[in-house]
Amino acid sequence: MIEDREPIRVALLGCGTVGTEVLRLLREYPTEYAARTGAPVHVTGVAVRRPHKHPEVPEHLLTTDAESLVEGNADVVVELVGGIEPARSLLSRALHAGKSVVTANKALLAEHGSELYAAADANGADIYFEAAVAGAIPLLRPLRESLAGDRINRVMGIVNGTSNYILSAMDSTGAGYAETLEEAGQLGYAEADPTADVDGFDAAAKAAILASLAFHTRVTAFDVHREGISEVGAGEIQAARALDRTVKLLAICERVVDEDGSESVSARVHPAMIPRDHPLAGVSGAFNAVFVEAESAGQLMFYGQGAGGAPTASAVLGDLVAAARNVVVSGKGPRESAHAQLPVRSMDRTPTRYHISLDVADKPGVLSQVASMFNEHDVSISVVRQQGRGADASLVVVTHTASDAALRRTVDKIAGLSAVLEVVSVMRVEGEPS
Amino acid sequence: MIEDREPIRVALLGCGTVGTEVLRLLREYPTEYAARTGAPVHVTGVAVRRPHKHPEVPEHLLTTDAESLVEGNADVVVELVGGIEPARSLLSRALHAGKSVVTANKALLAEHGSELYAAADANGADIYFEAAVAGAIPLLRPLRESLAGDRINRVMGIVNGTSNYILSAMDSTGAGYAETLEEAGQLGYAEADPTADVDGFDAAAKAAILASLAFHTRVTAFDVHREGISEVGAGEIQAARALDRTVKLLAICERVVDEDGSESVSARVHPAMIPRDHPLAGVSGAFNAVFVEAESAGQLMFYGQGAGGAPTASAVLGDLVAAARNVVVSGKGPRESAHAQLPVRSMDRTPTRYHISLDVADKPGVLSQVASMFNEHDVSISVVRQQGRGADASLVVVTHTASDAALRRTVDKIAGLSAVLEVVSVMRVEGEPS
Repeated sequence: MIEDREPIRVALLGCGTVGTEVLRLLREYPTEYAARTGAPVHVTGVAVRRPHKHPEVPEHLLTTDAESLVEGNADVVVELVGGIEPARSLLSRALHAGKSVVTANKALLAEHGSELYAAADANGADIYFEAAVAGAIPLLRPLRESLAGDRINRVMGIVNGTSNYILSAMDSTGAGYAETLEEAGQLGYAEADPTADVDGFDAAAKAAILASLAFHTRVTAFDVHREGISEVGAGEIQAARALDRTVKLLAICERVVDEDGSESVSARVHPAMIPRDHPLAGVSGAFNAVFVEAESAGQLMFYGQGAGGAPTASAVLGDLVAAARNVVVSGKGPRESAHAQLPVRSMDRTPTRYHISLDVADKPGVLSQVASMFNEHDVSISVVRQQGRGADASLVVVTHTASDAALRRTVDKIAGLSAVLEVVSVMRVEGEPS
Repeated sequence: MIEDREPIRVALLGCGTVGTEVLRLLREYPTEYAARTGAPVHVTGVAVRRPHKHPEVPEHLLTTDAESLVEGNADVVVELVGGIEPARSLLSRALHAGKSVVTANKALLAEHGSELYAAADANGADIYFEAAVAGAIPLLRPLRESLAGDRINRVMGIVNGTSNYILSAMDSTGAGYAETLEEAGQLGYAEADPTADVDGFDAAAKAAILASLAFHTRVTAFDVHREGISEVGAGEIQAARALDRTVKLLAICERVVDEDGSESVSARVHPAMIPRDHPLAGVSGAFNAVFVEAESAGQLMFYGQGAGGAPTASAVLGDLVAAARNVVVSGKGPRESAHAQLPVRSMDRTPTRYHISLDVADKPGVLSQVASMFNEHDVSISVVRQQGRGADASLVVVTHTASDAALRRTVDKIAGLSAVLEVVSVMRVEGEPS
């Protein structure tokens, strides 16, 4: 009988929304978890800062001493504390003691992942972290395992629910950024301090994790080019709409192959215009979706809830079952694969496309002046739309692919032209044939 | 050095489109596969029926003696032959010898899966079969592993590319079934004998595999209610369009909870109308997409190419890396989990919704006659649209959920009413709130 087997002992660090849900499910369905794991799964302790705030946790499980809990008799440590310290020291300690780790801590993994992976590897322990990116969506396991026999060329997705909620709302109401952010906060879609979400830090950490797995290369949060959504105004949204596009905050990880065949990895987070009929355009509110392009598999999409207590708990528990089953059968999950170790490309040298919307004087020669600026910087133009309206005219240009630096230099030069009255919006374009 | 380690020996059974691609990739990127596996991956033989038809395979690898190849020194057997025999005997032999198996054989798994899983388990071998359902889309690993800590309630998807291609084409051209099937054949989207695809056998095998994994219950192809698309005519497509719906062949696996709390599993394949704004409605041509609803994770969607040499090879190679890595680290993949062993519900007792389109005589009392038939069978009506056009009228009814048997009985009774001139179309409705 499975119930009679030696139980797998689980130490839980942190008991917020996700931890509470994890604990509840483990205690509510013990037979299910035993059947899936091959042995009973017992929570041996829950480390929290303020025990009196957790009346739902049986008192004998609660402790404020996370270190002793990690050093105790646990087989698997589940970390849901977040932040760099003390999570980093605690997990390092666990792994060095040969205990497997399940974590949802994207910031920690994006900065110190390789140190933790190395500790896991050296001590025969597992480290699983499905919940760190895109919440409930099974994404990391497919990248790490299902596509282990393929060659991934691109990962592009919406991985931050708060900023996606704000951009979706701006798109449907036409309201400005500040106003929409405030509303999102009132509705509980944005935190009191929304910096990590709206400035792209959260998405950048996720991009680092995705790029590392996809390209078998160590990519940290510091390698990721990051721009948030605070500069996106109602004007940008409107300009996008006029071209049948919408604006999304995208995390993009891609393999760039130079003409000489040498490869590098680009990882970036920034707002971009995508066509309204692109599948990512329909991802609204707090949902996440990620596109993966692989050599053999072609295009794949994963869609679901990217945050929240229950969805994140689903991912954590899937990992916990995997880690616990490995303890039962003395197995071992996948190791870090950083064997390709491709160089990380700077944003300047990353190929992108731009959408530029200008107010120009409506007189002869303006278009040719603007066009020659593109030409000078070796940027070729894909779409031009000029629309006169009295003394001035609206001029919209969508470029072909060029290096991001060349595109930014071109925009700077154009802004300086006397005939250009105003640069209305400048935004990168994604998700359409170049 | 990984290259100096004992190689993992792979026997390949079958070398059609998928096998050729698997072999090509293994031979083209040996360093990559070694890095991902932890040891070199060597193909030690390729069993085919007619060796002279495979000039692309090195002669010393070719053999017609699949049995000896399986009995030889292989660590992993990759089966891409298809069909029940000799695949079943060969894989059974491999597993009993403790060799791990990777297969794309949905028909075999849907009929004799449990026998193979038991053999794998008893002999410490792995059996992986991601390629058997939805080609390149990582779907089985997420169901089996990522969602192992969750409770899946429903899996619904488009899992047969040929029938989806035909229905998409009928929807966009307005043409009939026979004509579209012929065209699909000419374009290479339908096989010379399309029975397995258009009559739903292929989708039913996949539904059996999905239901087994999702509900930890043994479900075979024989348990799956199956209706193909040959009865879908231009009239059905048009009736769907009039209600802003489209017709898709769906595989649906769901957990049904009765009022007394007892649970059962329903697995079925049939055409159904879905709203045009449902994400599955946009899945056109040969693509596959699957929705998964889980208790904690909520709604997830997986989308990608469901067939073809390269996409299927991607799935096979992901499994091969997993199986080979387990050999290297003496690990073990997930076992069959049939611990829930829920009863399989008959189609009669499965709750469904119907769309019924009738030509009726345009005179007083007809609607009340029709409505009373629904009432008699305890079927409640969600939408009614009656539109007069001279002597007769078009009457469209969409029901609420009822047992499939009650719905079919109601339709039979209605067809017999003297005021009903013709039953134009009858189809189940999915993908909208009941």
